[in-house]
Amino acid sequence: MGNKVIGLLTDFGLKDYFVASLKGVIFSINPEAQIVDITHDLPDYSLLAGAFILLACYRFFPGQTIFLTVVDPGVGSERRLLLAKSNRYYFIGPDNGLLSPVIEAEKAEVLEVTGQNYFLTGRRTSFEARDKIAPVAAWLSLGVELSELARPVKSFERLNWPQPQITDREIRGHIIYQDKFGNLITDISQGIIASFLNSNHSSSLVILAARKRISEMAATYSMAPKNKAFFMINSLGLLEIAIFASSAAGALGLGPGDEVVLKLE
Amino acid sequence: MGNKVIGLLTDFGLKDYFVASLKGVIFSINPEAQIVDITHDLPDYSLLAGAFILLACYRFFPGQTIFLTVVDPGVGSERRLLLAKSNRYYFIGPDNGLLSPVIEAEKAEVLEVTGQNYFLTGRRTSFEARDKIAPVAAWLSLGVELSELARPVKSFERLNWPQPQITDREIRGHIIYQDKFGNLITDISQGIIASFLNSNHSSSLVILAARKRISEMAATYSMAPKNKAFFMINSLGLLEIAIFASSAAGALGLGPGDEVVLKLE
Amino acid sequence: MGNKVIGLLTDFGLKDYFVASLKGVIFSINPEAQIVDITHDLPDYSLLAGAFILLACYRFFPGQTIFLTVVDPGVGSERRLLLAKSNRYYFIGPDNGLLSPVIEAEKAEVLEVTGQNYFLTGRRTSFEARDKIAPVAAWLSLGVELSELARPVKSFERLNWPQPQITDREIRGHIIYQDKFGNLITDISQGIIASFLNSNHSSSLVILAARKRISEMAATYSMAPKNKAFFMINSLGLLEIAIFASSAAGALGLGPGDEVVLKLE
Repeated sequence: MGNKVIGLLTDFGLKDYFVASLKGVIFSINPEAQIVDITHDLPDYSLLAGAFILLACYRFFPGQTIFLTVVDPGVGSERRLLLAKSNRYYFIGPDNGLLSPVIEAEKAEVLEVTGQNYFLTGRRTSFEARDKIAPVAAWLSLGVELSELARPVKSFERLNWPQPQITDREIRGHIIYQDKFGNLITDISQGIIASFLNSNHSSSLVILAARKRISEMAATYSMAPKNKAFFMINSLGLLEIAIFASSAAGALGLGPGDEVVLKLE
Repeated sequence: MGNKVIGLLTDFGLKDYFVASLKGVIFSINPEAQIVDITHDLPDYSLLAGAFILLACYRFFPGQTIFLTVVDPGVGSERRLLLAKSNRYYFIGPDNGLLSPVIEAEKAEVLEVTGQNYFLTGRRTSFEARDKIAPVAAWLSLGVELSELARPVKSFERLNWPQPQITDREIRGHIIYQDKFGNLITDISQGIIASFLNSNHSSSLVILAARKRISEMAATYSMAPKNKAFFMINSLGLLEIAIFASSAAGALGLGPGDEVVLKLE
Repeated sequence: MGNKVIGLLTDFGLKDYFVASLKGVIFSINPEAQIVDITHDLPDYSLLAGAFILLACYRFFPGQTIFLTVVDPGVGSERRLLLAKSNRYYFIGPDNGLLSPVIEAEKAEVLEVTGQNYFLTGRRTSFEARDKIAPVAAWLSLGVELSELARPVKSFERLNWPQPQITDREIRGHIIYQDKFGNLITDISQGIIASFLNSNHSSSLVILAARKRISEMAATYSMAPKNKAFFMINSLGLLEIAIFASSAAGALGLGPGDEVVLKLE
């Protein structure tokens, strides 16, 4: 019962006392919890990066995993704490848009955390992750009833998440993430490309971005020509710009937020 | 019995073989140990940062947690290894001041590690954390008697820990820590401020630091004016200088060691 | 049975979704696995650093530990996945040389991973660590028979691993690793030095590297003269160049790949 996975996703970094405090609180309540660090190295206050990383990996976790997510410039304000429940997972975090993409993807039921009896303190705090969110996650992992911890809400904050625009001749998308290797991940999905190609008779694609033209496509990194930018459908099903064993971000001068146009030749 | 938490606090970083070696040793002795990384990203050789991080989070860990702490430029010398025991916790680390603040806070009993039979090697070693400290922590977590591992000592090294000075008109303290977000934490506690205000009739406070004047106070980050430095009592009960969603350290040019004066207006 | 240690060694970093995806997959298959991060901060694509870190710490892990190792510029190509088995350990990773030093050290039996039924997907993938390697490690930790997962191979890729050259008057080696503190670790082992000294009548040694001359030797860091480079046999049994509480790499301008000559005076 108690050995559920609790996945932690924050912008707290690993150098301070923040993450250790969360873990101390969780193990104090549920010594059998299986804590997994998803990442704590999100760019400071970046809701977009946090939402992306969560979307990129949550499906690979065991059923009943509880995701504890904190990117929260508004900590201590009147904004609510959400607890979302889908068929397979739980998600807890501030009501600031961080969870909205995964709520949509999972068609999750959305509740507001109200179980003050389970908080470490009932007072206002500048460390809600330690004092409110971690204890709620830990008690939930022990089997406390959802109705004890939260109540349904009608609406919640939506993240301003980029959407690619599709016309007859092109797909206009954006780079949404740059990984450690300098690979550039876009918001243009395999499904969007498939329906775009279906309504066209050519299948020769080219990417235009920052006055660069990328025409090579490859199935995996190692199948690409050396020292040359190429694009691929990556392991998340998204269009990605990369260079074999090198940084595409560095070589092309591109990064998150930049526009990427995929068009037919 | 065996699933006690062992919390690791070092300046070893995560890129090398150091931390993995400790974990391998611990799991070899106690496969049920619950290892928690507090942090390994302390500034090289910084006893002060190590002592601060430990003080900031140890209280949130379960009773019987064993804290394994290593910041140790003197590794391999004749300096002793300490094992401190309080009502709720154990602390193991070099006798160089790292543990003295938490020993004082916990009114812990202080012992010297002598259980050479439990070391990986009886010889001099340049990696005592692996060869001596980790095995002692692991055997302790398995229930080996304290008297098997250590014997009481009369004195131990004290850290040169800053103490704020209080006069009628002001509190002179220091920045003791800069967190990942650039928030500046001082050694001026809530209790010191309360007794200072009790003996005065004004409650209008201002901070002077590095020729800057900070007069805004806020209860949490999000309640502060934007783009302006403010001060707050943080989640540790300490005076902290911050800027909403930005780095106070960067904006003010302040960092650990700098003096901070809190005075009445 | 299921609570075996699975040690992870990659160049994936901790900021992205990569490591979390591996952990999600492993816990989905074996909720009792004991996952240990060895390091994920290897320099991008550095087989040498990966092989060194693994060699430096694997012996300290419990018997039956499964080491999951990924430094893999060739991901998605036709190169095989290896599974090596020694008396005490299992090692899984790409057939690109990363595992060859530990295979040699452990005299391990070498197999090729063939158990496609245990992969997340049978298709080509640009994230084999998630889709193939992690599930194989997890099923192995649950006790699936080796013959179900892999079959013996006759040959495998060897890493171009530096070897010191020994003459009558000197040992010519290399710096193979620079740790977080700036200590410089060489490929000259205690055993090589012992046999070199045995065949000579002097025992006064000096190091020449990058036009610097290092003549101080110390047993541990703290026993060395301050502010002066010295050499020692480190906790791995290798010749190491260091400066007490400071960075030898920074002070000497030396790093991995540089030649180091140890000679008699």
